[in-house]
Amino acid sequence: MVEPTANMTTSPTVQTAPQNDCFLRACRREKNTRTPVWLMRQAGRYMAEYRALRSRHTILEMIRDPALAAEVTMQPVDAFDLDAAIIFADILPILDEMGLGLEFIRGEGPMFHHPVKTPADLDRLRPRPAREALGYTIEAVRETLRRLKGRIPLIGFSGAPFTLACYAIEGHGSRDFLGARRFMCAEPAAFHRLMDILSAAIADYLVEQARAGCHAVQLFDSWVGILGPADYREFVLPYNKRILDTVRAETGVPSIHFGTNTTGILPLLREAGGDVIGVDWRIDLADALKLLGNGVAVQGNLDPALLLGPQERMRSAAAAILDAAKDRAGFIFNLGHGIHKETPPENVAALVDFVHQYRP
Amino acid sequence: MVEPTANMTTSPTVQTAPQNDCFLRACRREKNTRTPVWLMRQAGRYMAEYRALRSRHTILEMIRDPALAAEVTMQPVDAFDLDAAIIFADILPILDEMGLGLEFIRGEGPMFHHPVKTPADLDRLRPRPAREALGYTIEAVRETLRRLKGRIPLIGFSGAPFTLACYAIEGHGSRDFLGARRFMCAEPAAFHRLMDILSAAIADYLVEQARAGCHAVQLFDSWVGILGPADYREFVLPYNKRILDTVRAETGVPSIHFGTNTTGILPLLREAGGDVIGVDWRIDLADALKLLGNGVAVQGNLDPALLLGPQERMRSAAAAILDAAKDRAGFIFNLGHGIHKETPPENVAALVDFVHQYRP
Repeated sequence: MVEPTANMTTSPTVQTAPQNDCFLRACRREKNTRTPVWLMRQAGRYMAEYRALRSRHTILEMIRDPALAAEVTMQPVDAFDLDAAIIFADILPILDEMGLGLEFIRGEGPMFHHPVKTPADLDRLRPRPAREALGYTIEAVRETLRRLKGRIPLIGFSGAPFTLACYAIEGHGSRDFLGARRFMCAEPAAFHRLMDILSAAIADYLVEQARAGCHAVQLFDSWVGILGPADYREFVLPYNKRILDTVRAETGVPSIHFGTNTTGILPLLREAGGDVIGVDWRIDLADALKLLGNGVAVQGNLDPALLLGPQERMRSAAAAILDAAKDRAGFIFNLGHGIHKETPPENVAALVDFVHQYRP
Repeated sequence: MVEPTANMTTSPTVQTAPQNDCFLRACRREKNTRTPVWLMRQAGRYMAEYRALRSRHTILEMIRDPALAAEVTMQPVDAFDLDAAIIFADILPILDEMGLGLEFIRGEGPMFHHPVKTPADLDRLRPRPAREALGYTIEAVRETLRRLKGRIPLIGFSGAPFTLACYAIEGHGSRDFLGARRFMCAEPAAFHRLMDILSAAIADYLVEQARAGCHAVQLFDSWVGILGPADYREFVLPYNKRILDTVRAETGVPSIHFGTNTTGILPLLREAGGDVIGVDWRIDLADALKLLGNGVAVQGNLDPALLLGPQERMRSAAAAILDAAKDRAGFIFNLGHGIHKETPPENVAALVDFVHQYRP
């Protein structure tokens, strides 16, 4: 098991203050001059620049080469007036590096050759310190910061333990991750042990990204919304809390805690922690702000389908979000989930400009 | 366009009162002697009896043969102490009968050969009165009622217009029905026209099932949870309301209004109507009861994954639901979505007995 404190350096983490700090001011719930906007999966297949690189490299090659990862990270930053960059990486390599054998199969998505099918399979997991196992992403953070030249902050990220456990057990993507759910119910002690192993590795990974200079980190619990509240409290909350507490104690950088289909468990996400709670599009933002209360910043929540067009409908939905958030210190405009690969880039440009220019 | 009133007979609908009426008492929010329980997709692949029939017939053959459909409907009723039967049918034949060309492809699920890809494709739709187009299901209702001999009530059902529109446009199942979402945003007038055509046909279909003797009907809006509240209000609410109002005005039988991922839009489902609101498992039942208020019955909401076992965890989750509902007139125990095909039948038996015997 990786102890997140085992790799502590004695030097404190010092992030270089970016020239555009509206994203960080929102994370800290300070008064802001403009609403910050960035978009989940902003570096991706909807951009011709990305597809051009992708045609010559596999996803894993792009992630494992710090120069390529930094280049991809910069593509949307150079194309649009975004208020934060997010390091180009994926949530799954951390599992690959533990020995699960990740492969991205064209047209089918990610697949693990050695999934966790029984409690005994947990003994096969070989977690190593993030600076060794995921050193390429740590180096990509440093390279990206050099290229950003302090313009805007850089966000690091990791998948959350439940979402990663789903993949580790199921072995591939799934609508309902029923195999993982069955494992959780039938082998609760082993599931807790898996969550424990993953949490330690994830905390270490996020801490290392912050130490390399990331100004904030996001915990992606993308599929946690398949759980009801009681299961979330028992199997997820303590682990996400441990990760978010560790990031705060070890680095002091703000953290964003995000999931989809979480309307019924939003107060539990809040309880688990994070300076910012990321909200999907299935809830009216005004309701989400009420549910979450004032002591936390909020990020969200435009339906990514609206970016497919027409722009008029996209703008009107963005305006409704900005209206709902207008009296809120600590709001970050984002989508409710990752941008779709079918999105026209001109709609992204139009959205970013609209958010900056809109006056509720 | 089918006018739901066009097939009205002058005789009023009279349902035979079943000996076990606890389900209907709950629909009407009357005091009850026991908590009624039935399970969505209770006739299905998890039962050996079903698989035996299925090995000799396609799904569409089973649906289109009233004797086979009645036989399948009776399988869970004979095996478990259920308080309601639901007619064996599928949400998609109504689209097939309009000319979309439905085929169930082994291992892939439903596929339409002639999906709605452009507004002009709407002119190809050929809705006919349900008693002609879906006469086999109407006849299956009559045959099932003969076999039930008044023991328990029979529920009829239909897919809701949004869920059907998703399939009609996408042409197959999907995680996010992005093609349908894009059509909705880009061609709102055509999407409204499709919803209008579907609503009329669905209302007619539900009315005919009630006229044939169904004691209640359920509107399955299974995939409506991909929409945010504003889109739901604009594109869905008026149509579901029209259907549910028509069923009430024409037949007087209670209706159940169900969807998944609806936590953020539950009050809007309530506004659209239904004597009973079906709730998925992603919300604590106590929260759902509070959100919905007292003027409506509620059905739900055990996570179907818990039926995979172990039984102890399943029972404890069922107890939490029954505790939350204990002071509520008008509660029907059900799953939060359809039963999984991997479910051991002995767990279904244990669950049904537990619900009946439990005293909060």
